[in-house]
Amino acid sequence: MTTKKAVLLTGKAKRVSTTDDPELLWVEYLDQATALNGKRKEAIAGKGKLNLQISALLFAELKAAGIPTHFVSAPDDDSMIVKRAQMLPLEVVLRNYASGHFETKFHVEHMRPFTPAIHEYYFKSDALDDPFINNDQILALGITDADTLATVRHLTDRVNELLTARFAGIGITLVDFKLEFGTLADGSLVLADELSPDNFRLVDKDTGASLDKDVFRKHEGDLQPVYAEVLRRLQASK
Amino acid sequence: MTTKKAVLLTGKAKRVSTTDDPELLWVEYLDQATALNGKRKEAIAGKGKLNLQISALLFAELKAAGIPTHFVSAPDDDSMIVKRAQMLPLEVVLRNYASGHFETKFHVEHMRPFTPAIHEYYFKSDALDDPFINNDQILALGITDADTLATVRHLTDRVNELLTARFAGIGITLVDFKLEFGTLADGSLVLADELSPDNFRLVDKDTGASLDKDVFRKHEGDLQPVYAEVLRRLQASK
Repeated sequence: MTTKKAVLLTGKAKRVSTTDDPELLWVEYLDQATALNGKRKEAIAGKGKLNLQISALLFAELKAAGIPTHFVSAPDDDSMIVKRAQMLPLEVVLRNYASGHFETKFHVEHMRPFTPAIHEYYFKSDALDDPFINNDQILALGITDADTLATVRHLTDRVNELLTARFAGIGITLVDFKLEFGTLADGSLVLADELSPDNFRLVDKDTGASLDKDVFRKHEGDLQPVYAEVLRRLQASK
Repeated sequence: MTTKKAVLLTGKAKRVSTTDDPELLWVEYLDQATALNGKRKEAIAGKGKLNLQISALLFAELKAAGIPTHFVSAPDDDSMIVKRAQMLPLEVVLRNYASGHFETKFHVEHMRPFTPAIHEYYFKSDALDDPFINNDQILALGITDADTLATVRHLTDRVNELLTARFAGIGITLVDFKLEFGTLADGSLVLADELSPDNFRLVDKDTGASLDKDVFRKHEGDLQPVYAEVLRRLQASK
């Protein structure tokens, strides 16, 4: 039985602690929502538990489908035990449809479909304000190597196939999402971070309603019942 | 003998006219320098002629080395006859060293070398303010196809090899440059636009002095003698 030790760091929506096993970390999901890269922040009761449960369920399913992940277990209803990974400082964005930032930047119609999907990388750096970056720049700056980038792309496409089908089965369109990856002690690349409506753009196929953080970003109402509905549908169809 | 007909369009530093041959255009190089995407503009006596002569010389040399170009001839000292091309709406930037925008964006040291060189694309669109764009976005938006992008990359690398060696031979480091490409009536891709210190970042290997538009951008002095020096060295070493 893994036990929680000292807090390592507290992020925008998660707190990470060491455990009695040096290879494992204890991640608590907090009741916080942020927007505008953290400039707007609100406590939302129940959000941590919902994100933890959605993430744990999806990590377990992806793992069962052959995707390497950092996920080990969910020891209580707002915590996850994960393998310690050296995080790749990239946000990997995949877009199946035009929405949000992309729609604005390129003046394209909302929900224009992209087949194949678009991959984008953002360099995680507070000092640089997480700039959009291309493959050549990633390699030239030594952020990672070409083999790792190829693996990231392949895994992201595979996660997209699996999650698109999974959400379609519960009446939800997976519009776009953000993933993060890390490297384990043995050098293998794994899907890390979280898998929740904080990082996915989800739209109800029947009503067109947002079932994700856009509800918070656009002040459309309470996040909690929306995230609860996503979890309910996922659990009901396991 | 090709003759100039009606003006088709006047850009920031060039005026394009039709000719008696529907496949050929007449391009006049104007005495204008712009910075900040055209927000700052000055007339600089002699600049048009210098850019025309540098461009004509380099286009002819690249053509002789096997690079397909739109260049036909230079009928007078500020005009170029070119093949009519459907321009690809991309600015292709190649960086051998960190400088300018890149240095600022990524906080890297000035003149850090990149081997292999970095390729970047910017989508030419006044409405969108010429955004930085990646390959997936270019393909998804239908700006061009994957084969054309691969050819653009190959030609840009080849142009870089040729020009880096050419400038090294006259004591100049080719730091970075911007190219544009177009498609001829027969569907073939050609190097187009201009090849001048307006689009190249050039540094004297001995003194470290800028020999390009940075002199204008940074208010370091007169452009005309600097461009004249680049032309003089190129002509002296033909």
